[in-house]
Amino acid sequence: MTDAPKRQMKLGVFANPTGNHVASWRHPDAQADAGVNFAHYAEIAQSAERAKFDMIFLSDNICVREAKMEALSRSAQYVANFEPLTLLSALSVVTSRIGLVATASTSYNEPYHVARKFASLDHLSQGRAGWNLVTSALGAEAPNFGRETHFDHRERYLRAHEFATIVTGLWDSWDDDAFVRDKESGRFFTPDALHTLNHKGEFFSVKGPLNVARTPQGWPVIVQAGGSEDMMAVAAEFAEVIFCAPLTFEAARTFYDKIKGHAASRSRSADTMKILPGLAPIVGRTDAEAAEKVRHLESLTHPVVALEILSTILGGIDFSGYDIDAPFPDDLPATTNASQYVYASAQELARSENLTLREVALRMAGARGKNVVTGTPKQIADMMEEWFEGGAADGFNILPSHFPGGLNDFVEMVVPELQRRGLFRTEYEGTTLRENLGLARPGNRYVEQLTPIAV
Amino acid sequence: MTDAPKRQMKLGVFANPTGNHVASWRHPDAQADAGVNFAHYAEIAQSAERAKFDMIFLSDNICVREAKMEALSRSAQYVANFEPLTLLSALSVVTSRIGLVATASTSYNEPYHVARKFASLDHLSQGRAGWNLVTSALGAEAPNFGRETHFDHRERYLRAHEFATIVTGLWDSWDDDAFVRDKESGRFFTPDALHTLNHKGEFFSVKGPLNVARTPQGWPVIVQAGGSEDMMAVAAEFAEVIFCAPLTFEAARTFYDKIKGHAASRSRSADTMKILPGLAPIVGRTDAEAAEKVRHLESLTHPVVALEILSTILGGIDFSGYDIDAPFPDDLPATTNASQYVYASAQELARSENLTLREVALRMAGARGKNVVTGTPKQIADMMEEWFEGGAADGFNILPSHFPGGLNDFVEMVVPELQRRGLFRTEYEGTTLRENLGLARPGNRYVEQLTPIAV
Ligand SMILES: Cc1cc2nc3c(=O)[nH]c(=O)nc-3n(C[C@H](O)[C@H](O)[C@H](O)COP(=O)(O)O)c2cc1C
Ligand SMILES: Cc1cc2nc3c(=O)[nH]c(=O)nc-3n(C[C@H](O)[C@H](O)[C@H](O)COP(=O)(O)O)c2cc1C
Repeated sequence: MTDAPKRQMKLGVFANPTGNHVASWRHPDAQADAGVNFAHYAEIAQSAERAKFDMIFLSDNICVREAKMEALSRSAQYVANFEPLTLLSALSVVTSRIGLVATASTSYNEPYHVARKFASLDHLSQGRAGWNLVTSALGAEAPNFGRETHFDHRERYLRAHEFATIVTGLWDSWDDDAFVRDKESGRFFTPDALHTLNHKGEFFSVKGPLNVARTPQGWPVIVQAGGSEDMMAVAAEFAEVIFCAPLTFEAARTFYDKIKGHAASRSRSADTMKILPGLAPIVGRTDAEAAEKVRHLESLTHPVVALEILSTILGGIDFSGYDIDAPFPDDLPATTNASQYVYASAQELARSENLTLREVALRMAGARGKNVVTGTPKQIADMMEEWFEGGAADGFNILPSHFPGGLNDFVEMVVPELQRRGLFRTEYEGTTLRENLGLARPGNRYVEQLTPIAV
Repeated sequence: MTDAPKRQMKLGVFANPTGNHVASWRHPDAQADAGVNFAHYAEIAQSAERAKFDMIFLSDNICVREAKMEALSRSAQYVANFEPLTLLSALSVVTSRIGLVATASTSYNEPYHVARKFASLDHLSQGRAGWNLVTSALGAEAPNFGRETHFDHRERYLRAHEFATIVTGLWDSWDDDAFVRDKESGRFFTPDALHTLNHKGEFFSVKGPLNVARTPQGWPVIVQAGGSEDMMAVAAEFAEVIFCAPLTFEAARTFYDKIKGHAASRSRSADTMKILPGLAPIVGRTDAEAAEKVRHLESLTHPVVALEILSTILGGIDFSGYDIDAPFPDDLPATTNASQYVYASAQELARSENLTLREVALRMAGARGKNVVTGTPKQIADMMEEWFEGGAADGFNILPSHFPGGLNDFVEMVVPELQRRGLFRTEYEGTTLRENLGLARPGNRYVEQLTPIAV
């Protein structure tokens, strides 16, 4: 028998401006101007921090989402919002323990800027920064950066790999104790403690050193999302947290095993990578109360919006030829890999309850294809425990349906239930995101010769 | 006779981490870890705000400054520090009136990112953001962004011009009243209020629209520094505030007339552009006290550092062959245009006081070639009034020798003197940086058809 403390869940909150539900902005509770309302985000971050969440997560696209205007103009998501790094920097001032994770694309940024901004955020927050490394997902981003089309999938991740190599190299530009700042002798830093990267690679050439001191966490925590082989090759080496969106326990467990296997192939132990499936909870004190909350959100959803999102999560299907009040069509054209699970779920749902296209759209698009769990705190905690203990998750990225109500419900009802079960902390373990996630602080490659020095 | 309120100075504070003086970090007062110390910057910003400064200004280079290691390792400036936009975003939370101006380079950034981050800061700060548009000055920046050398001077400003055209175009992506957020009808924004830039130019191709709502200021305030013809061509069209570094009244007045003439040639009235020369004040209650402060800072300056900075401000002269304790050499090789004034001043200083190279270096390099004025509050206010009333300045960018002492001296002694003379505000005129600077809020080009719509 060991005295090892019980393994506990890690929790993130996905801070889509007004919430995860497509109609969230119309909810009576909602701050419809969330995208320009700092006080709103401060409230979310502070609530999540009071509940001891590990981190707040800001997704990002570098464009206005493309959609038919009738649908787009009824949406609050991925239209116009604060830029994540500026917003998290401001949030660092009104929080003290919660991790601050921003998304930045390796396809449309320079590694020096990304290394620098996240390092700066890590200093501002005293060790709470995380970088969600993405390769960009939307076609509309490319033309904002001088390209007609996106890089192809494989090239995207080859660039991402080199990009992460550079960023982490720049984060090691200074030894932890480089800055002696000795007023007496006049020595500000130790000359030997400065390291120049001199990277020349296939896609980037970056000399360095970085003009930010090594950060409290050594490196900000690296997060990734996705699931392709290309993505896993990068994640195996760099990712410390994985966001994913499986819709069933089986899918989650398969993904969990696969990506931890990738990490193992790089000699990483399983607990150096935390897998957090997305979870969109709708919590009620009773089943009926929870069901009523779902119905309310559905009633706020415009069918045009629902159909547009359903089309998007099904890989871009064009529904314009279909009757919205006819049974869900069983002759949909082939979709992309990424949306196959979603497609199967939609068909399953339609068959089992005999639903029309409109009904499927309202049901599935509401949560934007995320894994919704509706019920009492006990039911939701049961599902989370099952995934967590069953090898399908190290925790969850919580997508509240709307802010602040959807988050408050989870915080007030589900978090205490998880704590009672010993599945979630009642106090932060440390002051940095790494400490709370149970991730080691990386040594400096130049000091510890952990990896060959890049030339 | 008119009742027009008396014209008043605009004041910025140049927030070099530990202060403007090369030895500032060694001052007993100084926060030597300023570059990673948020509380330090919060204190500076709040002091400046209590004194009703218009803005706090963060200069920026995207590299570790290059210098011989013996000098560099004794320097706190342009080595390692917070990244400006993340820092100002955090400062927006602990201030409410002072403007927040960050530097961003048009040579090593994407216009979409710059437009977006400054727009985001303008929302976070409720209308206090400013962008110091630079084309990058240091050779060490290029190799951090895949280039061996910098773009040549002319190309730099051609790019800058196109860059500013795009950024301001993106800032007009949404009408001010685009986001109706009508929960009742379900309309989030008005379709006609969204404008796509579709820019295709010589250097950049940027489609838009920007994914941030039009900001409180319409456009963040645009600032520029420099003095070449190339720079003035861009400034004439875009710059609303100019930072400059003349060393004499005559030089300041000549520059003032010239650049306002450039603005006039674009049909801009003189008061749409505010000229703020840099001013490095050393304030004492008596002449003797002020002189003692100078002597103290000089005593903290390592000769190697002084010589390195003197070399830099004289355009890169190599002093290694010179005896530091011999008279200031009169056979210096030709220097760049930018440093001609500084060179003439150094010669003049050496001749008039019979100084050695070491003495000139300590005296001139201390303030990094900036215009130092040493004396009592009255003397300093006299000089400022003379420049301000004499057509050489619309205000000043104050470079305190060290923080917080050098700023506090100015705030406690000089500001009240300026206020007594009616030369500086005792209360902010408005809540936005534009309002305080007396700059109009730009109309949206798509709504007002002020300029042709870019295609
Ligand atoms: C939970 C989750 C969050 C994501 N957030 C972003 C994001 O903020 N920005 C982005 O460009 N892509 C985002 N993605 C997309 C992924 O980075 C990835 O491109 C996508 O899942 C396809 O996987 P693949 O790249 O492995 O093919 C996210 C994906 C998931 C599952
Ligand atoms: C007060 C002042 C502040 C400046 N700040 C910066 C800065 O933060 N970053 C930068 O790259 N250049 C900075 N510069 C350099 C100018 O942008 C410009 O490149 C330089 O003065 C040379 O002028 P020119 O470009 O017109 O030839 C500054 C110049 C002055 C006078």
